[in-house]
Amino acid sequence: MPYPSARRLIILAEGHFGPHDGKTAMGVIRYGHDPVIAVIDSTNAGRNVREWLGDRPRFDIPIVASLADAQALGLVRGTPTALLIGIAPTGGKLPAAWRQVILESIGACLDILSGLHTLIGDDPEFAAAARAAGVEIVDYRRPPSREETAVGRAHAPGKHVILTVGTDCAIGKMSVALELRQAAIDAGLVAVFVPTGQTGMMIDGWGVAVDRVISDFSNGTCEWLVEQAEAKGDWIIVEGQGSLDHPAYSAVTLGLIHGTTPQAMVMVHKPGLPEHDWDHVEGRTFPLQPLNDFVRLHEQVAGVVAPSRVLAIALNTSLFAEEAAARRVIAETAAETGLPTDDPVRFGPARLWAAIQAGVEALDQATAGR
Amino acid sequence: MPYPSARRLIILAEGHFGPHDGKTAMGVIRYGHDPVIAVIDSTNAGRNVREWLGDRPRFDIPIVASLADAQALGLVRGTPTALLIGIAPTGGKLPAAWRQVILESIGACLDILSGLHTLIGDDPEFAAAARAAGVEIVDYRRPPSREETAVGRAHAPGKHVILTVGTDCAIGKMSVALELRQAAIDAGLVAVFVPTGQTGMMIDGWGVAVDRVISDFSNGTCEWLVEQAEAKGDWIIVEGQGSLDHPAYSAVTLGLIHGTTPQAMVMVHKPGLPEHDWDHVEGRTFPLQPLNDFVRLHEQVAGVVAPSRVLAIALNTSLFAEEAAARRVIAETAAETGLPTDDPVRFGPARLWAAIQAGVEALDQATAGR
Repeated sequence: MPYPSARRLIILAEGHFGPHDGKTAMGVIRYGHDPVIAVIDSTNAGRNVREWLGDRPRFDIPIVASLADAQALGLVRGTPTALLIGIAPTGGKLPAAWRQVILESIGACLDILSGLHTLIGDDPEFAAAARAAGVEIVDYRRPPSREETAVGRAHAPGKHVILTVGTDCAIGKMSVALELRQAAIDAGLVAVFVPTGQTGMMIDGWGVAVDRVISDFSNGTCEWLVEQAEAKGDWIIVEGQGSLDHPAYSAVTLGLIHGTTPQAMVMVHKPGLPEHDWDHVEGRTFPLQPLNDFVRLHEQVAGVVAPSRVLAIALNTSLFAEEAAARRVIAETAAETGLPTDDPVRFGPARLWAAIQAGVEALDQATAGR
Repeated sequence: MPYPSARRLIILAEGHFGPHDGKTAMGVIRYGHDPVIAVIDSTNAGRNVREWLGDRPRFDIPIVASLADAQALGLVRGTPTALLIGIAPTGGKLPAAWRQVILESIGACLDILSGLHTLIGDDPEFAAAARAAGVEIVDYRRPPSREETAVGRAHAPGKHVILTVGTDCAIGKMSVALELRQAAIDAGLVAVFVPTGQTGMMIDGWGVAVDRVISDFSNGTCEWLVEQAEAKGDWIIVEGQGSLDHPAYSAVTLGLIHGTTPQAMVMVHKPGLPEHDWDHVEGRTFPLQPLNDFVRLHEQVAGVVAPSRVLAIALNTSLFAEEAAARRVIAETAAETGLPTDDPVRFGPARLWAAIQAGVEALDQATAGR
C-alpha cells in the first residue's frame, strides 16, 4: 500500500476530536505526510488543531461543523481528495449518524479511508456509491488474506527488535514508536517502524491492524510483520497495542509480545491516570499496575517464549501542564524504576533512543559472550 | 445448536487417528453422545478404536480405509447420518486430498460436521453439493456474529468459575474440564461445561471456538460465554486453550484467562513431554516451563485483572504405561507443587474435584471475610 502523494484529507472526528477517542485523527495530523484541509467536529467548530498540538502540525488546521464547511475551505486550501475517519470508538463500530456524511463524501468524489472494525467497503450501499462515483474505499482494518500460526522464527543476525508496551491503551505507544524510529534514523541507523494498528498504517503505508486478525493467527501475523521489517532495515521498532493487564485487549497485547519476540521493550506510561478508561460496566474500577511490578511481569511473560528486557520508560506527561512538573515526574519515575525515562513526544526522543540503543547493544554483547 | 438425537457418525481422520492431530476424533468418541459407525484412516485400517481407548467408548469402533468401507459397516451398525472431520491440523486448513471424500459423503446424503478454520459451508462447490443433496454443513469454527469487547463484567453472586490451563496444547484441557464437570454433577452440583473449541462444541452442543474470534473480541467473547454459563448453572468449568507460553497460541490463552476471570485454575500437565510439539521452524526447541514457576506466573498474570488461584494439578500420565509409574509421578508432582494432583481421565475425577470444590469454597469464605 504505497502512500499516495497528492492526497489531501478531510478528517471526520464528529463529537470526539481529542487525544482519547480521536487518537486516529491526532496521530495522522501529527505524524502523517498528507496535508489536512480540515477536521469535522461540530462540538469543536471554530477552534483550531493548534490549540491541542501547538506547532506540531506543519500548517494550522481549522475545525469545522460539516462536510460543506470543509469543502468550502478547500477552495483556498486545496481540493480535498479523501475523507479519513478519525476516531476509534470502543469495538470499532460505525456510529449510525455517520452514514450520511460518508455517503455525501463519496458523492463529492472523496475516497474513504477507514480504520473501523465495520468494513466500509463491505457495506452494499457504500460500495455501490463508491463504484458509481469512481472513488476508492480503503479499510485499514481489513485483515490480510495470509492466515498462518507462528512458527517460532528466530530473528536474522544483526536485526534488533524493540516493542512499545504500556500500562493502558490510548496513551501513546504508537507515537513513542514513531518518535524513536525518527531518532534512530537521525542517529544514522536503518530503522523501521512496524504499524500494528489502523492509525500507524495510515501514517506509514503498510502493516496490519493486529486486533482484527483471527486470534489463532495473532502471534503468527506479528511474527510475519517482523520478518517483513527485517527485509527493510536493522532496527525494528514495533508499535504495541492495548496493555497486558487490560480486561478487554490483553489478548492482542500478548500476541504482539510473543509474536514479535522483541529483545527489548519500552514501557509507555501516563502518570496521573488512575485506572483503565474504556467502555466498561458501571460501578467497577480497573486500576493500573504498579510500574516496577508491571515491568517485571512483562519480562517474565515475554521470557517464557524468548528473553526480553524493558530498557526504558517513555512517559506521556500530558496531564502535567507545566514543564517543570513534567520534568519532575520524569525524574521521579527514573528513580523509582532505575530505568532511563523521558517523554519523547514532548521533549524529543534523542536522549531516550541513545539509552535504548546502548542497552540493546549491551544485550547483544552479553548474548554473544555466552 | 441443540444436539440432534438420531445422529450416527462416520469420523474422518485419514492418516492421523491418534491423540495429537486426531484429538477431535478422540474427544468425540470419548465424550460425545452419538454412536460412531466407523473411523476412516487408511493407515490404521483393520484396527479398532479400543486399542487406543480401551473400554472408554461404549461400543467398539472399527477403523476402515474408505468411505465405502464405512458405509458397508452401516448395513449392520446403523445407517450413518453425518461425516465428522476428526482432525485438527496446525492452522486448521483443509487438506486438499479430503475434497473428494467430503463431496462423496455429501453425495451419500451425509451431513458434514467440521471444526476446521477453512469453513466448509463457504466453499461454493461444497455448498452447491449440499444444497443439491439436501444435507447440512455445520462449521463449528464459524465465529458468532456478536462482536463485542469485554466490559469488565463481575460474576453473579454464588457463581464459581474454574478454567483449565496447561503447559502445552493438545494435552487434555478439554478432557479434564469434562471429567471435572461430571464429578461435580455426581457430587450433586449444578455444573456447566463451557466449550471453547470445536471438539468441545461437537460434544456439548454450544459454545464458541475462541481461536477463530477476531483478536479484539477474544476477551469479550470469553466473558460472554461465562455470562451464558451462569444462566445454566452454578459451577462453571471452562475448557482452556493453548498455553500461556506457547509461541503460536498464547494470545488465545490469555483471552480466556482475562475474559473468563476464573476464581480458580486447574493446571493440566503431561509429564515426560519435554517441549512444545507443533509445526515450527527446524533447529529450534521450545521447552515447557518449570511447573511451580508456571503456576505462579498464571496467578500473577490472571491477577492483574482479577484474583485467581491454581488449585490443582491435573496430570496426563499417558506417557507412563504402567499404573504404578503413573501413580508415582502423581505423588512426585503433588510433593513438588504442594497442590492436589491426580490424572482425572485415567483414575477418575472425584478426588481432584473434591479438592477443587473445597478450595473454591475456602476462597469464597476468605473473600466474604474481607
